[in-house]
Amino acid sequence: MSGKGKIIVLGGDGFCGWPTSLRLSNEGYDVTIVDNLSRRKIDVELGCQSLTPIETIEHRLQAWKRITGKTIGYVNLDIAKDYHELEELISDLKPQTIIHFAEQRAAPYSMKSPRHKRYTVDNNVNGTHNVLCAIVESGLDIHLVHLGTMGVYGYGTAGMTIPEGYLNVRVNIDGQDREIEIPYPPHPGSIYHMTKTLDALLFYYYNKNDGVRITDLHQGVVWGTNTEETMMDPALINRFDYEGDYGTVLNRFLVQAAVGHPLTVYGTGGQTRAFIHIQDSVRCISLAVSHPPAKGERVKIFNQTTETHRVRELAQIVSRLTGAEIRYYINPRNESLENELVVRNDQFLALGLNPTTLNEGLLTEVYEVAERYKDRCNVEKIISDSRWRADIPLDRTGAAEPVAVHPTQAKAMEPA
Amino acid sequence: MSGKGKIIVLGGDGFCGWPTSLRLSNEGYDVTIVDNLSRRKIDVELGCQSLTPIETIEHRLQAWKRITGKTIGYVNLDIAKDYHELEELISDLKPQTIIHFAEQRAAPYSMKSPRHKRYTVDNNVNGTHNVLCAIVESGLDIHLVHLGTMGVYGYGTAGMTIPEGYLNVRVNIDGQDREIEIPYPPHPGSIYHMTKTLDALLFYYYNKNDGVRITDLHQGVVWGTNTEETMMDPALINRFDYEGDYGTVLNRFLVQAAVGHPLTVYGTGGQTRAFIHIQDSVRCISLAVSHPPAKGERVKIFNQTTETHRVRELAQIVSRLTGAEIRYYINPRNESLENELVVRNDQFLALGLNPTTLNEGLLTEVYEVAERYKDRCNVEKIISDSRWRADIPLDRTGAAEPVAVHPTQAKAMEPA
Ligand SMILES: NC(=O)c1ccc[n+]([C@@H]2O[C@H](COP(=O)([O-])OP(=O)(O)OC[C@H]3O[C@@H](n4cnc5c(N)ncnc54)[C@H](O)[C@@H]3O)[C@@H](O)[C@H]2O)c1
Ligand SMILES: NC(=O)c1ccc[n+]([C@@H]2O[C@H](COP(=O)([O-])OP(=O)(O)OC[C@H]3O[C@@H](n4cnc5c(N)ncnc54)[C@H](O)[C@@H]3O)[C@@H](O)[C@H]2O)c1
Repeated sequence: MSGKGKIIVLGGDGFCGWPTSLRLSNEGYDVTIVDNLSRRKIDVELGCQSLTPIETIEHRLQAWKRITGKTIGYVNLDIAKDYHELEELISDLKPQTIIHFAEQRAAPYSMKSPRHKRYTVDNNVNGTHNVLCAIVESGLDIHLVHLGTMGVYGYGTAGMTIPEGYLNVRVNIDGQDREIEIPYPPHPGSIYHMTKTLDALLFYYYNKNDGVRITDLHQGVVWGTNTEETMMDPALINRFDYEGDYGTVLNRFLVQAAVGHPLTVYGTGGQTRAFIHIQDSVRCISLAVSHPPAKGERVKIFNQTTETHRVRELAQIVSRLTGAEIRYYINPRNESLENELVVRNDQFLALGLNPTTLNEGLLTEVYEVAERYKDRCNVEKIISDSRWRADIPLDRTGAAEPVAVHPTQAKAMEPA
Repeated sequence: MSGKGKIIVLGGDGFCGWPTSLRLSNEGYDVTIVDNLSRRKIDVELGCQSLTPIETIEHRLQAWKRITGKTIGYVNLDIAKDYHELEELISDLKPQTIIHFAEQRAAPYSMKSPRHKRYTVDNNVNGTHNVLCAIVESGLDIHLVHLGTMGVYGYGTAGMTIPEGYLNVRVNIDGQDREIEIPYPPHPGSIYHMTKTLDALLFYYYNKNDGVRITDLHQGVVWGTNTEETMMDPALINRFDYEGDYGTVLNRFLVQAAVGHPLTVYGTGGQTRAFIHIQDSVRCISLAVSHPPAKGERVKIFNQTTETHRVRELAQIVSRLTGAEIRYYINPRNESLENELVVRNDQFLALGLNPTTLNEGLLTEVYEVAERYKDRCNVEKIISDSRWRADIPLDRTGAAEPVAVHPTQAKAMEPA
């Protein structure tokens, strides 16, 4: 039993959830992980694995206990299916906070086939809804912290600085121009992103009707792999996704460089994305946990991101650092080829976040991890066979020059 | 085989779906009904039944064939669960249009318990998503017509005239005030209504990514029971819900009057609601079917409603007509006690809809149906035991004067 209160971490075996669980345990919270290990099973389905040799959850937790003397609990249940077990767990443990990472989180995976689309919708919507429903049922005043994505804004397609979740607009009411604040209109770019916009409506409703305290973290693309805690012992190592579905762009480039695969830039690489290092992600979540919204306050939304970059610029940085070749592939996504992105993150800065931005030292650290484990990489899995529409061709070779837009993508280029 | 094209009616055994199927068959469409009969099973669960003695779907369709010589097909499948059967049916039949009524549609039912909340979310979201996914998979250019609700607007809480789905707002972009059009910010008042706002995002996404042609009909409260076609034979009679969960306000009052139960007004009865008669509902759907959006057009949204009324005014009208007593119950819902509601419905008017508004003749017709079948009414089921929050008391007796607000509802009264 520890002094800081109880936290349930849903999805605590995953890439973000694992280092977060260790950090919070280290900070003195009494942590219980809930995870159905679906992500590990998807590795089996896809015929690949984390680049880093991750231990089973049981071994991970034994190592943590051995090294720090701290206990993290673990319950294997499916939050989208095992509602009664979830409700019981919450009523028994009476946590102050539940952190919710437990979703299918890869956009390309969500677009692979009807089965994958349907699994993503079913898993993410029912999972989030079950958590909210069980919190209300418990009668406890639990703070729910959810991991959302910057992708719900549609990457700033309207050309404005992205606010934190809410937008001030002027509307004409009875002939008078009045200013009102509305949830930022969602513009999801994949089935996965769409589920996050559905989550947002679930939060909006349960906050309004039942007064549930909710923080939704609109996170950028996470890069890096280790944190202070995961580096304490080899058995605590974090997962590292590099393949076409789950690998996120910067980490992927570093692995591609390590195994001698060309850097896979989609289209012109003009897409601007928001980024955050895993160490900052973990810090932000700890800050969100210790700064819950007041009772009766609306859903608190933070943009959890520290910088933005164009994909081709990242490729150039990695290429300079490692000598890797850059290749341009037909974009499997249905999106604007070039976009600007300016994002506010004032709230985390005000809470004391000191952003770790992209620097050679950290890039080299990730590259070294990639180098060390490159024999575990299945090069065939680097290119995803997911496409946003059946009529977008699958490109396995790439070109030396930026790829001209495919006819089916012309519409996607129009400003939304 | 008939001249006007093929239509699949999902939920075609229900209150709106049945008369719509008959009308479209009569108009010359080749209609196939898909329904898992969940609504009839919910009657079993709730221990009540349609006030009108409805026939089995098989007998209904035999009667239709006997009377008109026309065949309506029927397939029993669950659109939220039997994805492959749905996909096959669509690929085999190659319909031009799919009309989607197949959802759990009662707000009080959706609030009864965790099981009911979870069923409503699971059934409605997965059902709608499966239909969209199967349409894309079929590769066919199918027009999807969905029944939504006026409730997604949150009953005009911002005090403005409700537009048809989209809202013009001015935002500051790079220091300049610019006008943009956004989907009307949703403000759902129950789990059921929330699922309709989730549907809207599914439509938004599949329209944008896959170019699916979609019409979403934001329907008001439907009243009345018979249409030209359902009156052709007793075996074609439409269902008539009167109990606390599925009965909608005006129809409920008329049954209450017929059985000598006081009219059940919630709170002050100051809630303004949008209404449409079942005959107009059927006409509107036929108009929507014959006026699909163009290929590449965004989701077309109509407000399918013809008039608005305050609940207590409706009670007064029914009371004058029938002599029934009015009683005021504690509102089980979490909503504003009094609200204004002004709704645009220009698009249907432009397509030639000639609204049937509330008149004594039609009210009397419904009252006569209620009178005829009042022995089938289970008076114990008139008051719903659903409440929006566990702390709202259940009121089974009502008061002669408008009920003062319950403390837990104070917040709901603040303008949203
Ligand atoms: N990784 C990123 O770059 C990134 C960026 C933005 C947002 N996010 C969000 O952060 C969260 C965590 O992402 P991640 O990268 O750690 O993903 P991950 O797949 O590594 O982790 C998710 C974990 O949740 C578990 N899970 C999934 N569904 C479950 C269910 N129904 N019941 C129980 N457990 C379940 C999985 O087994 C997995 O361990 C996700 O919600 C994701 O959308 C991640
Ligand atoms: N009745 C109203 O006043 C009203 C008002 C506004 C909007 N609507 C909307 O119109 C639509 C039809 O309403 P209704 O009053 O006819 O409801 P209803 O319950 O009478 O009919 C719905 C039908 O769909 C079927 N169904 C439900 N889930 C299904 C599934 N998973 N697979 C197959 N069939 C399924 C049910 O068995 C039922 O026959 C609903 O979407 C509702 O939200 C109704």
